[in-house]
Formats: sequence, C-alpha cells, structure tokens
Amino acid sequence: MDYLRDPEAIYRRSFEIVGAEADLARFSLFDATVAARMIHACGMVEIADRMIFSRNATEGGVAALQAGATILCDAEMVASGITRKHLPADNPVVCTLNDPQTADHANAIGNTRSAAAVDLWGDRMEGAVVAIGNAPTALFRLLELLEEGAPRPALILGLPVGFVGAGESKSELIAETFDVPYITLVGRLGGSAITSAAVNAIAMLAKGESR
Amino acid sequence: MDYLRDPEAIYRRSFEIVGAEADLARFSLFDATVAARMIHACGMVEIADRMIFSRNATEGGVAALQAGATILCDAEMVASGITRKHLPADNPVVCTLNDPQTADHANAIGNTRSAAAVDLWGDRMEGAVVAIGNAPTALFRLLELLEEGAPRPALILGLPVGFVGAGESKSELIAETFDVPYITLVGRLGGSAITSAAVNAIAMLAKGESR
Repeated sequence: MDYLRDPEAIYRRSFEIVGAEADLARFSLFDATVAARMIHACGMVEIADRMIFSRNATEGGVAALQAGATILCDAEMVASGITRKHLPADNPVVCTLNDPQTADHANAIGNTRSAAAVDLWGDRMEGAVVAIGNAPTALFRLLELLEEGAPRPALILGLPVGFVGAGESKSELIAETFDVPYITLVGRLGGSAITSAAVNAIAMLAKGESR
Repeated sequence: MDYLRDPEAIYRRSFEIVGAEADLARFSLFDATVAARMIHACGMVEIADRMIFSRNATEGGVAALQAGATILCDAEMVASGITRKHLPADNPVVCTLNDPQTADHANAIGNTRSAAAVDLWGDRMEGAVVAIGNAPTALFRLLELLEEGAPRPALILGLPVGFVGAGESKSELIAETFDVPYITLVGRLGGSAITSAAVNAIAMLAKGESR
C-alpha cells in the first residue's frame, strides 16, 4: 500500500498544508504556532476564523509553564493528550473529575460533576494553566468562581464542545472583564484533542522545541 | 450565571438538538444511535453526511462486545475516552502505542510508532473491536495486515484525523473487499473523541442502556 510512513515527513507535510490552507495572518507568531497545532489536531483549517486569543495569552501561558505552573484539566481525555515530555518544568497535570469527593459535591451544589470538579481545584488555580476541552459547565463554573474572587489562573484554554452551553460559556468567557488571558473558539466546536494540542504547543514554545 | 446545570437535562437537550438538526434518516436505528453520539462528541451535525456504516457494522460490534471482545485502540486518548462502566463484559481496552517494543519495531519496519503498535496486536485482533481515532498510518498498517491474512476483527472503527493520510486511509478501508465490517467518516475529520463516542454508543447498545 502506498502511503507516507516517515513521521518527520508526515509532520512536515501536515504543517505545510495547514500553512497553505489556513489564514493565520491576523495572529502573532506565537499565537499562530498554537493555532496551527489546534488546526492540526482536528483537521479543520476553517476553525482559524473562530479562534480568539486575548492579548499576550500565549506568552502568558509560556511564562507560566516555564515557572512550573500546574495544568488543570476538566477531563481525563484532555490530560491524556498532553505530551509529558514537552512540559518544560515537569508541570503537574491535574484532573479532579474522578476525585472521590466530586459526585457528592455535584449533588450538594446542584451542578454537574464537571462543574463540581472545578471547585476542587482550590488554591491550585493561582497561576495555573486551565485546560477546559469538554464540559461547558466546567467553564461556566470557573467563571463563577473568578467572579467571586477565586485565585487567578495565568491562562484559560476555554474550549468546551457541544450543543448545550458550549457556545454560551465561551461567549461569557469573552465578555468577562476580569483580567485573565484566554484562548477560545466561538461556537460549538472545541474538544479534548484541540485543547491538549494547544497545551502541547505552548509547552513546546516554552521549551524552545519545534516538535 | 444562568445556565443549564442538571446533567439529565443537558443530556436530553443535546440529543434533541442533534435529532432536530442532523439528517439521520438514511441510517438503521442502531446506526443512527451511534451516529448521534459521534455527532454529540464533536458538535458537528454536518458529519452525518460523511459517515459510512457497512452493513450490520453496529450489530456486529454489539455482538462482539457482548461476547467479551477486546477493544484495540491506536491512541491513549481513544482508550481514555471509553467509559468502562458501559462495557458489557469488562472488555479489555488495549493500546500498544507506548509498549516498550513499539519504538524499536517502528525503526525496524520503517514506519511510524502508530503503525508499529498495530503489529503488536497479534492474535488479539481476532474478533476484536478496533478503534482507530488518531493515526492514518495505524489504519493503513491494519489494512496491510488484513491483506496478508491477519486475524479478522469483528468491527473496525476507522476514524483517523488530519491532513496527511486520513482521507486516503479511509478511502482504502472503504475500497477493501475483505469482509470486515467498518464505520468511517470520509475525508479529514475523525479523532479520538468521535471514536471513543462510537465505542461507548455500541457498548451501551450491547448493555441495553440509554445513557
């Protein structure tokens, strides 16, 4: 069967296609690097038009990871997609969704397990890189906590996916006026692969790696 | 903040939207159930037009999982997205990508680690549900092994994503004439979330669960 087998060649050709087909001209060089990897993860160059990087979001994420920031994930799939060898400071990758306390806490607050899991992040939110790639309610809950004065993350990757709450929670993230940098994708699209690709891209920038 | 917090209500509303927006009329009831969950996982109703279910693919997957079939995944993210409690027979979930032999074997055969990992499945392919949600080279390699007479899986979920080889490997899967049922999505789209959603849907059908 005739197909490209060399990982370097596949990698190079993939990013050639992304570069040729995606319009990344409006992004800074750092943001474009992250955008290209998010596109690579989902196979859709058209998401470029729907991405929003707040000012210096990528730079803030790079500095945070270099300083040892914890990465807080809403779902195990997001955590699973983060390539540990790219992390510049053996950064902890945390997902509290399956913590023994989460289900009871969800009942107590009348919200989803994904939202309850965010409450368990506590002081680990200070300076963290937050990677939400699945549940809209996790992003809504994070925004509620920040409104109430919770510790500020260094960067929010707000990339939940789906038909109920995904677009709405991302609109709230964009509308918020507290000063936390974010990367998001308006509308329904998002997901764990796009989110872990964004984390990996920022980690590689932090480590000065090109792949 | 005003948003839907009740997981049952979110779930119901999500599938109402999928049902209202996605055209699933050409699918059997079983296939439509799987298709709806794949759409739910990625937030894109338009993938319905690109899905191909070979005849009785879902039925074959259901019977295989009930009989204890192993689930062979090309990537840890796919394995991570499979909800173990839905599995009808404590089915083993296997990913050999990070097996200690994989890197050396990739060098030996001049192919990617993802392709090399498929070679390590061996006799576990017999009657298995194969879930490829990331690497085109894993699907290409699987098809090569099947051409060479390797043990037949019960079902192939051929859903790699990306710009190099994803569309091509799925076209090969569709063009193959050996008699292994498959579910695929033509073109570049696919991914770990869509793939694990398909496995979860088949598992829930096998267990008679609606969620």
